[in-house]
Amino acid sequence: MPESAVIQQILAVLGTRPGVRVGIGDDAAVLEGDPLLLVAHDMFIEDVHFRWTTHSFADVGYAALAVNLSDIAAMGGAPVAALVGLASPSGVFGAAEIRAMYAAMEELAGETGCSIIGGDISRAKETVVGVTVVGRMPNGVPPALRSGARPGQLICVTGPLGASAAGRRVLDDPPARPGPIDARLVAAHKRPSPRLAAGMALARDGISAMMDISDGLCLDAGRMAVASGVRLTIDLDQVPVAEGVAAVAAHAGIDVAEFASTGGEDYELLVAIDPARAAGTATTLIPVGTVSAGDPGLVTLRHGRAVRLTQLGWDHVG
Amino acid sequence: MPESAVIQQILAVLGTRPGVRVGIGDDAAVLEGDPLLLVAHDMFIEDVHFRWTTHSFADVGYAALAVNLSDIAAMGGAPVAALVGLASPSGVFGAAEIRAMYAAMEELAGETGCSIIGGDISRAKETVVGVTVVGRMPNGVPPALRSGARPGQLICVTGPLGASAAGRRVLDDPPARPGPIDARLVAAHKRPSPRLAAGMALARDGISAMMDISDGLCLDAGRMAVASGVRLTIDLDQVPVAEGVAAVAAHAGIDVAEFASTGGEDYELLVAIDPARAAGTATTLIPVGTVSAGDPGLVTLRHGRAVRLTQLGWDHVG
Repeated sequence: MPESAVIQQILAVLGTRPGVRVGIGDDAAVLEGDPLLLVAHDMFIEDVHFRWTTHSFADVGYAALAVNLSDIAAMGGAPVAALVGLASPSGVFGAAEIRAMYAAMEELAGETGCSIIGGDISRAKETVVGVTVVGRMPNGVPPALRSGARPGQLICVTGPLGASAAGRRVLDDPPARPGPIDARLVAAHKRPSPRLAAGMALARDGISAMMDISDGLCLDAGRMAVASGVRLTIDLDQVPVAEGVAAVAAHAGIDVAEFASTGGEDYELLVAIDPARAAGTATTLIPVGTVSAGDPGLVTLRHGRAVRLTQLGWDHVG
Repeated sequence: MPESAVIQQILAVLGTRPGVRVGIGDDAAVLEGDPLLLVAHDMFIEDVHFRWTTHSFADVGYAALAVNLSDIAAMGGAPVAALVGLASPSGVFGAAEIRAMYAAMEELAGETGCSIIGGDISRAKETVVGVTVVGRMPNGVPPALRSGARPGQLICVTGPLGASAAGRRVLDDPPARPGPIDARLVAAHKRPSPRLAAGMALARDGISAMMDISDGLCLDAGRMAVASGVRLTIDLDQVPVAEGVAAVAAHAGIDVAEFASTGGEDYELLVAIDPARAAGTATTLIPVGTVSAGDPGLVTLRHGRAVRLTQLGWDHVG
C-alpha cells in the first residue's frame, strides 16, 4: 500500500477529542495550550534511511534528530525536547558507539535549544532510531500548515535543492578523486540542517502555508496542493540548484532540474505566500511556482517547453 | 551492555537546558509549563515484546499504547495525545491489519481521553511499534517520581501480580483443556490495563514515590531503591498474587511468590507512602515492604525464613 492509502485507513478508524488543534497529516501535530505545543515523530532505519557502510554512529544520531527538528521548523516552532527510541541487534552498539551517537545528537540539540529527555532501548533485527520532538509555537504566532495555500500566491523555497541526493550518489558511486565539493554534498546528505530560524521567521512574517521538503520538491508540492485543495504550477527552470549538483546529475544522465526537484532530503522549506509579502520577508525566498484554483491536488511541472501533470496523493482527496 | 550501563553512557554525554523538570530516568519526562507536561516513549517489537504466533494486530496496537499510558499513570498524570511509529516488512500489514491495529489503539485512547495525532510509517525487517504519549499533570499536583521514597515509609502495590507472566506461559505451553481462568491470564498479558485513575488519585493523595511495575516487583523495587538512595525490604509472603497464577507457577515448578514478583508486565503501580497516609487513600494499597536508610539501592527480599539481597542497578548509583 502507498503511504497515503495507509494514512487513509488509519484516519478512517481514529476519532478526535478536545485538546488537539492539528492531528495526522501535517509536519507536526499541534496541541492546544498556551503556548501551542508541537509534536512530531519520525523513524530512521538501517537500510531504509541509512547504511552502516556509509554512515557513522554520529551521522545516524545527528540525522535522526535533524529530520524531526525539521518538522518543528516547518510549523514555525522552536524545539524544546526530544525522546529517542533506539533498537538494534546485540553487538552493534558498545559504549563508544552509544556515546558517539548521543554526543552528535546532543551537539545538534544544544545548537537548537532542545534537550534529550528520555526514550527507550531495545533489541531488534536492524538498527531503528525513532525520535520524537516536542516544540512550542512562539506567543501569538499561528502554526504554519500545509493547507493554507491560496490561488494567486507564490510558491517559494528557502534555498538550493539537490545537494543531499547528490551526496547520496557520491557515497554510492565515489569519484576517483573526490574534491571539496563532493565532501560538501556528502555532508549535506549525512548532516541535514533543519531550517529552524527561517521557519520561525517565516511563520511570524505571515506566510500562508509551509512544509519541509523531505521527499523532493515535486512530491511535497503535491502534498501541499492536496492539503490546500489547490492546483500548483512549478517551473523547474526556476528551481535553485545547489553547487556541485549539476556535475553529479550529468554523470548520472539525469536532467539537473529534475534531479534537484525529485531527490529529496534537502529539508529546505516550501512556502506559499502572497506576492506582496514575498519581497518583505527577512528570510530569502526563491519563487519556483504559483497557486491557482481548480483541479485540487494537481501539480503542473513546467520545464523549458515541456509541461507535465502529476497527481501525487490524488487518492487522498477523493 | 546491561540497560543501566547504556543509560550511564547516554547521561555522560547529555547536557540539560532550561524547561526540563525531570529528564531521563523516571517513567516519563516532565517539561515545565502550566500545566506540567509529561512525555514517554516505549517501543513494542516483534519477537522481543510480542510474537505474531500469539498476538493479533489488535493485541499489538492495544499493548503498545497501554504500556506507554502506564508510564503516564506512574507519574500521576492524564494522557492527552499519542504518536505511533509503525515499521514492518512489506506484506505484513494490509488495509484490514492497519485498521485492526489502529482501531484497538483508538478504543484504548478513547477510554483514556487520549487522541492519536501522528507518527510515521516505514519498512523494517520486523514489526516495530514505537509509541510516544504526551500527558498533563492535574493543576497543583506534583509529578510522582521514583526518587521520593524515604526511610520509615511503606512500599505498596495497587493490585495482585503475576497474571501477565502466567498468561505468557499459558500462551507458550497451552493446557490441554484451557478454562476461563486461562483466558483471563492470557488477556492480562495481551491487553495490559494502565492504572490511570489510581495513579492520578495516588499522586493527589500525596504518595512519596511511584512507578509502574513493568519488569517485575523485585527489579522495579531495585530501581526505586537506587533512584531514592534508600534500602527497600520486600516481604514476598505479603505480595498479592492474581487468581490462577498459583497453578501456572506450580506447573512450571516455580515458587508462586517468586513467580508473581519477577514475572513483569503487570503494570500495577509501586508506591512509597508514609504509614499514616496509607490507610487513607481512596485507592486500595497492599503493603509489601518497607523503606530504610543505608545501603542505597539495596533490596532485601524476605520469603518465609529466607532472606536474599539484590543489588539490581547498583552500578547506576556508583
